[in-house]
Amino acid sequence: MAITLNHSDADFEARFAAFLTTKREASADVDAAVRDIVAEVRARGDAALIDYTGRFDRADLDMLGIAVSADDIAKAYRDADPATVEALKFARDRIHAHHQRQRPQDDRYVDAVGVELGSRWTAIEAVGLYVPGGTASYPSSVLMNAIPALVAGVGRIVMVVPASAGIINPLVLVAADLAGISEIYRVGGAQAVAALAYGTQTIRPVAKIVGPGNAYVAAAKRQVFGTVGIDMIAGPSEVLVIADADNDPDWIAADLLAQAEHDASAQSILITDSATFAADVEKAVQRQLQTLPRGETASASWRDFGAMILVDHLDAAVPLANRIAAEHLELAVADPEALLSGISNAGSVFLGRHTPEVIGDYVGGPNHVLPTARSARFSSGLSVLDFMKRSSILKLGPDQLRKLGPAAIALAKAEGLDAHARSIAIRLNL
Amino acid sequence: MAITLNHSDADFEARFAAFLTTKREASADVDAAVRDIVAEVRARGDAALIDYTGRFDRADLDMLGIAVSADDIAKAYRDADPATVEALKFARDRIHAHHQRQRPQDDRYVDAVGVELGSRWTAIEAVGLYVPGGTASYPSSVLMNAIPALVAGVGRIVMVVPASAGIINPLVLVAADLAGISEIYRVGGAQAVAALAYGTQTIRPVAKIVGPGNAYVAAAKRQVFGTVGIDMIAGPSEVLVIADADNDPDWIAADLLAQAEHDASAQSILITDSATFAADVEKAVQRQLQTLPRGETASASWRDFGAMILVDHLDAAVPLANRIAAEHLELAVADPEALLSGISNAGSVFLGRHTPEVIGDYVGGPNHVLPTARSARFSSGLSVLDFMKRSSILKLGPDQLRKLGPAAIALAKAEGLDAHARSIAIRLNL
Repeated sequence: MAITLNHSDADFEARFAAFLTTKREASADVDAAVRDIVAEVRARGDAALIDYTGRFDRADLDMLGIAVSADDIAKAYRDADPATVEALKFARDRIHAHHQRQRPQDDRYVDAVGVELGSRWTAIEAVGLYVPGGTASYPSSVLMNAIPALVAGVGRIVMVVPASAGIINPLVLVAADLAGISEIYRVGGAQAVAALAYGTQTIRPVAKIVGPGNAYVAAAKRQVFGTVGIDMIAGPSEVLVIADADNDPDWIAADLLAQAEHDASAQSILITDSATFAADVEKAVQRQLQTLPRGETASASWRDFGAMILVDHLDAAVPLANRIAAEHLELAVADPEALLSGISNAGSVFLGRHTPEVIGDYVGGPNHVLPTARSARFSSGLSVLDFMKRSSILKLGPDQLRKLGPAAIALAKAEGLDAHARSIAIRLNL
Repeated sequence: MAITLNHSDADFEARFAAFLTTKREASADVDAAVRDIVAEVRARGDAALIDYTGRFDRADLDMLGIAVSADDIAKAYRDADPATVEALKFARDRIHAHHQRQRPQDDRYVDAVGVELGSRWTAIEAVGLYVPGGTASYPSSVLMNAIPALVAGVGRIVMVVPASAGIINPLVLVAADLAGISEIYRVGGAQAVAALAYGTQTIRPVAKIVGPGNAYVAAAKRQVFGTVGIDMIAGPSEVLVIADADNDPDWIAADLLAQAEHDASAQSILITDSATFAADVEKAVQRQLQTLPRGETASASWRDFGAMILVDHLDAAVPLANRIAAEHLELAVADPEALLSGISNAGSVFLGRHTPEVIGDYVGGPNHVLPTARSARFSSGLSVLDFMKRSSILKLGPDQLRKLGPAAIALAKAEGLDAHARSIAIRLNL
């Protein structure tokens, strides 16, 4: 059973504030181990990858090869369920279509004094995509990470995925192929991140590394940051459902459990204006848990981190939602647009009773890589912009330099930077 | 004298590769000290700020107050040189006009099957701006960091600046006022970063912290990252000038020295197709150094990190420039647009012989907070987007759920996530 907080209780603010700061993940301190792995890969390259993969993944890369071959991809298609491959194509096309709209426009203009200015977007030259092995090896995440890079125009998208006991989930390879990735290596962990950042004999380095991973992968990404760019470090998933009493409690319970089954550290929160409805949802959660294959995980998540928040009126849900800043926000109410207008902090918003968050995990179109742990207050989901960078452009002629130069000289001198002042003055014969 | 690399030498690639990986900064290990400071500020709030400020900045906040008052601002205007204030206004207006063009557009559309999708941008609610004290207390940086936040619509922009011996550079306060900042605290160092991230009795917490600082500030920003967002950690400044022999060597030398005077770790690089011109620039550098107030710093930078790269033809400069990925790139050639078309990695580009980089430091309009140390390969200068975040929007009705649901169910089942599948199936009576 999840905790219940009542907005009209005197101690609500204190309890809600404490709830907001609850840590859901113990951060394993693996920095030293990762530092050794990164140093080994930098020093010994492929040989280190082969050693670590033998030890950690129980896979013989001398035999299998570091690179996944075209034959491996062909075999993956044969091994995959055809209906699932079709579903991946359907997802791929929808994700691609949505991300196309995120391509930024270059800007170039001349201002009133004749100065030319601009912003020019270019794709990152090479990007590495980390894909976890084992049970968290999700083909949907391959699509979500690779397609924005593809749309951005990244020239080289490199995927790494550990082959536990030599095996890679065939759907992961199919998803990679559908997303246009042709360079794939069967390495994982901190050693794969090091290889992407610094390069080995087989793997040329990239400029940015994205994708989820375990504590070792996260620590390695932090350590190589600066040498390469990285994406956000994702925490456990979360959903906030704002629902009125006109919903079917079973639908809402199913949505809460869809988050909860990810991970015992996942978090599902319901805000409603009906105590009766909340009680019905709790009953439905308990009923559905009994027939859920991942019921143990979902039950732990709901028990430890789940919450139901009662408000007098749903308008009161909006400021609470902005403080929670959820990764996923469902507005299961009669007029979701009215609530949406007040929402400022949310990774992804799902409007109405027929938009369960799970649609966004797979086939909605928007990205499912989203800010967790309240970071939607200051960051956004993965997008095409994460795979591009902007150069600003400035162009003056002699007339413009005469107009702008004196102010720049004054400021340079005020900041004690005489060589700055001189670089303008020398051109103006001042 | 800077090193010279000749593109046609047999060992060029090896020397250039080594040059690219040269570290210009020793990273001081201040993590443990910063951890203590952050913990103290979290535990004791204002009292810790007052203690640390007394010790590190030799300023008595019990007497001065933590907050800068309206009277302090009025006094700063009286103390400031009026011509410099006018120059700051000129800069403010140009920076504001350019950043206005960076405001992102919301997107909302209905696709072919009737699914509503969108992207919705909102400003970060509260942002902290760190401004260094002492000689690096630059009013221009206040404008460059604050104006994008202002244009983004950030509701609360909070500035912190240490008051060494009680003194704050009046131009910094004037710049803050001109940029619309009304909440300023005279604290600095790791303690100021901790206060912005966690709040104290006087300082309410923010959601993101930006602005340059010393090793303590950088370490504190890394430590509070996650609780709040941070901007990039800036390294020493750098310029790459691509220049043909038709330039005045004195102009180019002045540009190289304008970077070099920042810091002994700054870097100035010239690529040219004329050995004679390179020699003339070196002579001009040595000549100009003799009359430069910050000559010692500039001389050390030019000697230790400066470089002149000779190429047979300026076309060969483009791939080298993309590998260098300079913070600032000057194209001092007859046809800069032709070179620009091949440039993919550069923080900011300055076109033609009359656009010295220094114009961009102050009054050009684009931001001067730019990616250093080759990070222009994967990141961009500060912009309005850094002060906003995007929520994706998805809205299905029953018809759309029937069309998209089955593919999502197939993928959820393939990923072993039955509660995911159920949250759709339950709505479709499947």
